[in-house]
Amino acid sequence: MAAAAPPPPPTPTPTPPSTVPADSTPIGHPLFSRVRLAGPSDVPHIHKLIHQMAVFERLTHLFSATESSLSANLFSSPPFRSFTVFILEVSPKPFPENSPHDSNPNYTPVVRIINSDLPVEDPEREIFKSENENVVVAGFVLFFPNFSTFLGKPGFYVEDIFVRECYRRKGLGKVLLSAVAKQAVKMDYGRVEWVVLDWNVNAIRFYEEMGAQILPEWRICRLTGDSLQVYGNDN
Amino acid sequence: MAAAAPPPPPTPTPTPPSTVPADSTPIGHPLFSRVRLAGPSDVPHIHKLIHQMAVFERLTHLFSATESSLSANLFSSPPFRSFTVFILEVSPKPFPENSPHDSNPNYTPVVRIINSDLPVEDPEREIFKSENENVVVAGFVLFFPNFSTFLGKPGFYVEDIFVRECYRRKGLGKVLLSAVAKQAVKMDYGRVEWVVLDWNVNAIRFYEEMGAQILPEWRICRLTGDSLQVYGNDN
Repeated sequence: MAAAAPPPPPTPTPTPPSTVPADSTPIGHPLFSRVRLAGPSDVPHIHKLIHQMAVFERLTHLFSATESSLSANLFSSPPFRSFTVFILEVSPKPFPENSPHDSNPNYTPVVRIINSDLPVEDPEREIFKSENENVVVAGFVLFFPNFSTFLGKPGFYVEDIFVRECYRRKGLGKVLLSAVAKQAVKMDYGRVEWVVLDWNVNAIRFYEEMGAQILPEWRICRLTGDSLQVYGNDN
Repeated sequence: MAAAAPPPPPTPTPTPPSTVPADSTPIGHPLFSRVRLAGPSDVPHIHKLIHQMAVFERLTHLFSATESSLSANLFSSPPFRSFTVFILEVSPKPFPENSPHDSNPNYTPVVRIINSDLPVEDPEREIFKSENENVVVAGFVLFFPNFSTFLGKPGFYVEDIFVRECYRRKGLGKVLLSAVAKQAVKMDYGRVEWVVLDWNVNAIRFYEEMGAQILPEWRICRLTGDSLQVYGNDN
């Protein structure tokens, strides 16, 4: 397990200015967001996002993933049955109609319109450009099936959830996690689980508001590096 | 994640009585142990073992697995690529030669001889009888691939490891966990991970002696039951 990046804190429900009737479109800058299945061509973006996450968590010394190691290990099985990545994209304009992503037989992209008070200044727009010049990759979530012996059925384990800095505090972390939860319900899976650092009180509050329990008593045990390798020689 | 049952504490290296030369066979009762891949016909035993684990952990209120739910979700994918179960069997006599398990193309069983001071009295011998009348199922481990984005490669997550009470304190928990670690090394996987209850100091010491790190800062977050179901309605 790597670190699950703390998501942005929840976005407060915007209160429309009093001059705007409640049923009109809120004033502001709409930001179209889309959650879609990732594929092999997304690996360069995924690799950059994981690196940003390692920087954010001050764990770059643990970061050794390469584009080739990701390509070799992701996308070799059907989605949801093994390691699966959702990409979060945003655009100031509606997403293209008849996008090839819309006809993915495994997953229909989820589009939501977020209202942003100010237009987002994205200093890395060029690096994260996606389907067309308006669309940029803003984050990702990587998850895979786990198995509860007590329930006797699978769930999803969310390894990482990450939103780029300039897109935080807009509810996009919740958009990503909700997409995983929705898929779990659709597949009749019993649980969605992930981990959080105990000092990250903002993230813990956010997760609790999403309905999650935080299990205080369990500790993660990890066998890795030389301590793992010795078992290879153990005949 | 269900609960990973605390394994038996490590067996101290037996000190041979001074009358026995160091190179002779230790006096005692040999117990032949075998770790092999489970298959569909093992489901009734696996179900009983999970139930015993729930009793041991006083978590029977969380236990809802049935033989059918296990059958529906296990063994549908090749082992090691999805949910995988190793069965631990023991016998006072050597395991049958040319057992069908020996020709499993995915895994060659690991046999070890454990020296037991006294013969084991197994009150559930009839319930857990396996390949022949000498062989009984003594425990299991259920594990599946996880994925480290930082390493860019898979590992194994051990959901449950369990040894029946009368076979504890003989090093059999280590036999099971070592078999998973050995398989991880063979597949060039980067980590083996599991969880432990923070008050279970015997288990924590045992895991540390096996080379594991205990990660103190991470907490598990779980979305389940009604809190999960609401996301299915969230359009």
